[in-house]
Amino acid sequence: MSPRTAYSRALDLENGVVEMCHGGGGRAMAQLIDQLFADAFANDILAQGNDQAVFDLPAGRVVMSTDNFVISPLFFPGGNIGSLAVHGTVNDVALSGGRPLYLTAGFILEEGYPLKELKLIVESMAKAAEQAGVKIVTGDTKVVERGHGDGVYINTTGIGVVDEAITVSGERAKPGDKILINGFVGDHGVAIMSLREGLGFDSSIQSDCASLNGLISDMISAVPDIHVMRDPTRGGLAATLNELAHQSGVGMELLENKIPIRDEVRGACEILGLDPLYVANEGKLLAICAEEEAENLLAAMKAHPLGKDAAIIGRVLEDDHHFVQLKTSFGGSRVVDWIAGEQLPRIC
Amino acid sequence: MSPRTAYSRALDLENGVVEMCHGGGGRAMAQLIDQLFADAFANDILAQGNDQAVFDLPAGRVVMSTDNFVISPLFFPGGNIGSLAVHGTVNDVALSGGRPLYLTAGFILEEGYPLKELKLIVESMAKAAEQAGVKIVTGDTKVVERGHGDGVYINTTGIGVVDEAITVSGERAKPGDKILINGFVGDHGVAIMSLREGLGFDSSIQSDCASLNGLISDMISAVPDIHVMRDPTRGGLAATLNELAHQSGVGMELLENKIPIRDEVRGACEILGLDPLYVANEGKLLAICAEEEAENLLAAMKAHPLGKDAAIIGRVLEDDHHFVQLKTSFGGSRVVDWIAGEQLPRIC
Repeated sequence: MSPRTAYSRALDLENGVVEMCHGGGGRAMAQLIDQLFADAFANDILAQGNDQAVFDLPAGRVVMSTDNFVISPLFFPGGNIGSLAVHGTVNDVALSGGRPLYLTAGFILEEGYPLKELKLIVESMAKAAEQAGVKIVTGDTKVVERGHGDGVYINTTGIGVVDEAITVSGERAKPGDKILINGFVGDHGVAIMSLREGLGFDSSIQSDCASLNGLISDMISAVPDIHVMRDPTRGGLAATLNELAHQSGVGMELLENKIPIRDEVRGACEILGLDPLYVANEGKLLAICAEEEAENLLAAMKAHPLGKDAAIIGRVLEDDHHFVQLKTSFGGSRVVDWIAGEQLPRIC
Repeated sequence: MSPRTAYSRALDLENGVVEMCHGGGGRAMAQLIDQLFADAFANDILAQGNDQAVFDLPAGRVVMSTDNFVISPLFFPGGNIGSLAVHGTVNDVALSGGRPLYLTAGFILEEGYPLKELKLIVESMAKAAEQAGVKIVTGDTKVVERGHGDGVYINTTGIGVVDEAITVSGERAKPGDKILINGFVGDHGVAIMSLREGLGFDSSIQSDCASLNGLISDMISAVPDIHVMRDPTRGGLAATLNELAHQSGVGMELLENKIPIRDEVRGACEILGLDPLYVANEGKLLAICAEEEAENLLAAMKAHPLGKDAAIIGRVLEDDHHFVQLKTSFGGSRVVDWIAGEQLPRIC
C-alpha cells in the first residue's frame, strides 16, 4: 500500500463503485489508497508510503497471526466485516499472552461494490484498530470481476510481542486444570443466522465481536501462567475444546449449567435445531489454568467489562480418547462430538 | 492454522474436492490442515499448532508486507498462484533492503476445487519458500460457495529484519541518480496474456516469477546506500516509476534502447497493441542509486543469475511535474503516462 501525493480527480465516495482499474496498480488504485485507506488508517508507519512497513518492536518474542474474513452478510448487528477483521486478528495475537501492535490489511474487492459501503467498512476497521491500540501499517488491494468474490474479502495479519516468561499454548492443558470462559456463548453465530435465514429473531441479539487484548492483558497480569487460551470461533466451544483436547492429549468435562447462554440464544437454537456449543463466537475466549489459580483468574476476568459474565465451566481430565464430555443439568453425561464441519458457513 | 494429531479418515487427494466443511473449524478442516498444509510446510514454528506463531527475530528494524493473489489462470508457464504468492511477498519484504524470514499463508478456497490441484499449489509454495529460505509459520483457510471466488485466492504476509544502517525508501530518489533494472521486462504479463487471450504465442515466454532476496542481499552488500528499490508488478515499469516520481517529487528519463525487452515480448505486445512498459513483471526490481555508485551496483547485479541481464536504463531529473519521460531510439522524447488502471486485470 503506497499512499501518495494529491491527485486531480477525487473519488466519488457517495455514488461511485469499485472498478477493475482500482486494482490495476495505476493512478486509480493510488487514488483509492490515498483517499480511502490512507486517510482512514493514517499513522506514521503507513505514511512511509512503500510496499512494506518498517518499524521497531519492543523486546520479547514475536507473535504473528493471519486470518481471512469472508463473512456473509458483510454488515450485521454489532459490527461488520471491517471491525470483525480487526477484532479477530487482534485476538489471535493476544491469545498467545502477547501484546498486538501492528496489522496489515489485504482487500479483495468485487467490481461494482459501492464505495460508500467500502468506506463504512474501512472506517469501522480504523475505529476498531484505534480502540484496540493497534496500527494498520501496510496493505494491498485487488479487484475481481463482478460475480466473483462477494463484495469484500479481507485478510488481516497481526504482529505483536510476548514476554519471554509467558508460554500460553494449546498443548499445555493438564488433568486437573480448570476451563474458563469470559461470557455468554453463541451470540455471534445467532446474530448472523438471524440475518441469513431471514427468521426475524429478536434484534436484541448482537454479535459479541470485540477485541479482547485489554481483557487478556489483565488476565496475564493476574495469572502469568495461564496454560492455554483460544477463541471459540468457527465450530464454537465444541470444535475448540476438541481441538485442544487432541493437542494436549487430555479429556475435558464441561458442566452444562455453568456455561453462560442467553435465553434468546437458547431459544433461537431450539427453533433452528442447533446446539449452542457448536455456534460461533467472536468476542469470547476459553482459558485453561491450574486449579489453584482458577478463582484468581476468574476474578480478574470479572473485573473487566468484557469478562463480567465469566465463568468456570469445566475441567481437564485424563482420557486417552481425548473426549469432551458434557455433564448435563440432570446429572447425565454425553460426548460433545467433534463434528466434521460447522452448522453454518461463512460465519467469519 | 493448528496442525494436529492423526485422524482416522485420510483426505482423498486424488479425486476429492474442497467442501464447505473444510472451512468450518471442525474435524474436516483439521484434516485438511494436517494432511495438506502442515505436511507441505513442515517446520518447527508451524508445529506449535496454535492459531498464532511465536518466534524470535534477529536484531534490526522489523519489515512487514502483505499481498493478496487473485491471478487468473491459477497455473501459467513458469509458476502458479502458490509460487507467485511466496515470491511476491518475499520480494516486497526484501525490497526494503531487509532479509525476509517468515510468511503467513491465508487461503480462500472455492467449494468444488480439486484437492489434487490445491496440493500442487501448496507444494509449489513450499518449494518456493524453501528456495527463498523463508518459513511459512501460520495460516488460515476459509471456504466460499461454488461460483464465488475462483478456485483459490491466497494472501501471504511476510516479516523480516532490516539492518539499522539501511534506508531504502520510495521518497529517496534524487536528481542525478541512476535507474537500474535486473533484466528483461514484460515476461510475466505476456506469459499470462498468451494464456488468457488464447492467441497461442510461442510458449518459450515464461513468467519471470522469482524470489529476489538473494540478488537484493548481494546488491546491498555492494552498495549499502541504494536509495530506492521497488518491483514493477501491476502496471509495469510505467506505473512504478510514476509512483516513485511522485513519492520523491522528481522527474525521470528512461533510455528506450537501454531497456531490456525480449523480441518475443516486443512481438507479442505489437500484436496486442500494448506497450511493454505497462506490462507486469514478477521477478524484476527497479533500483535507484547515486550516479557514482551505479556501475558498482550494476556489476553486483550482473554477477547474480537473476541479474545477469541487468542494465542502467535511465536517470532521475528535477521536474516539478514529476513526469517520466522516454528518450526514444530515434532521439525523440515522449511522456510515459500514468494510466488509470492496467492493460490486464488479475495479473497477480
